[in-house]
Amino acid sequence: MADAALDHLAAHYQGMPPVRALQLSVDGYDAGRLRLSAPLAANVNDKGCAFGGSLASLMTLAAWGRVWLGLHAEGIEADIYVADSHIRYLAPLYDDLRAEAMLAPEADWPGFVAAIRARGRGRIDLAARVALPDGTVAASFAARFAAIARAAG
Amino acid sequence: MADAALDHLAAHYQGMPPVRALQLSVDGYDAGRLRLSAPLAANVNDKGCAFGGSLASLMTLAAWGRVWLGLHAEGIEADIYVADSHIRYLAPLYDDLRAEAMLAPEADWPGFVAAIRARGRGRIDLAARVALPDGTVAASFAARFAAIARAAG
Repeated sequence: MADAALDHLAAHYQGMPPVRALQLSVDGYDAGRLRLSAPLAANVNDKGCAFGGSLASLMTLAAWGRVWLGLHAEGIEADIYVADSHIRYLAPLYDDLRAEAMLAPEADWPGFVAAIRARGRGRIDLAARVALPDGTVAASFAARFAAIARAAG
Repeated sequence: MADAALDHLAAHYQGMPPVRALQLSVDGYDAGRLRLSAPLAANVNDKGCAFGGSLASLMTLAAWGRVWLGLHAEGIEADIYVADSHIRYLAPLYDDLRAEAMLAPEADWPGFVAAIRARGRGRIDLAARVALPDGTVAASFAARFAAIARAAG
């Protein structure tokens, strides 16, 4: 994955006011995993740990970006939407938020790409998580995303 | 419900940096429903509609606040955590975000309160939704929350 794609993604994120509020950083993309982070100070709740809504946002954005990067590599421009998500909050996080997103184990990427090429739209399952500094999972995320091809410009 | 409790809740929300970023307002509480809102401009995504993470945050906060108000009315001070949530994004919202939260139909409020009083902790199911201006549901939220009583000060 060229760095240009990550730069494009980062600029895309920063165009969204709620993402700027998260103070999101794009940390890297390798082995099919997109890593994002955000400082605790901007995302802290009333108990001094990471706000559940910020964890939800960061994992949603990471999964959205993972789909975007995959489609970008295929040369497909599409609007990408989260259709539904399930989040489990497993342990409080008293540190900066670090999310990684990947395709769900059962996801059929070639089928997703083929559906977009054939019918202009497709659906794909993603997974994401935020870990504590010791690697324990603080929050896990499973979601379905939809992509709708943009008309060629 | 006395306005003092809503004022207390509003101040509590505003103590959280990510909530200030949402530009959240507490709109009212009646018939067991807590209503919150946030302007689209602060919560817009790349497609000009409401960002999924902001919808998740607003519904999580509304449900959290509904639990807080209910426990406050019982004279219980507790830390309240979201344990898991399931969100369905049903239609794009090109308007300000208006969430309402309530107990889930199956929720056992008296059992929840009794568990906190007897064992210091309990779990309760909440529901929330954001509607389009015409009343159609834009996003729906189902979640389980945990409350842990604070030691008497």
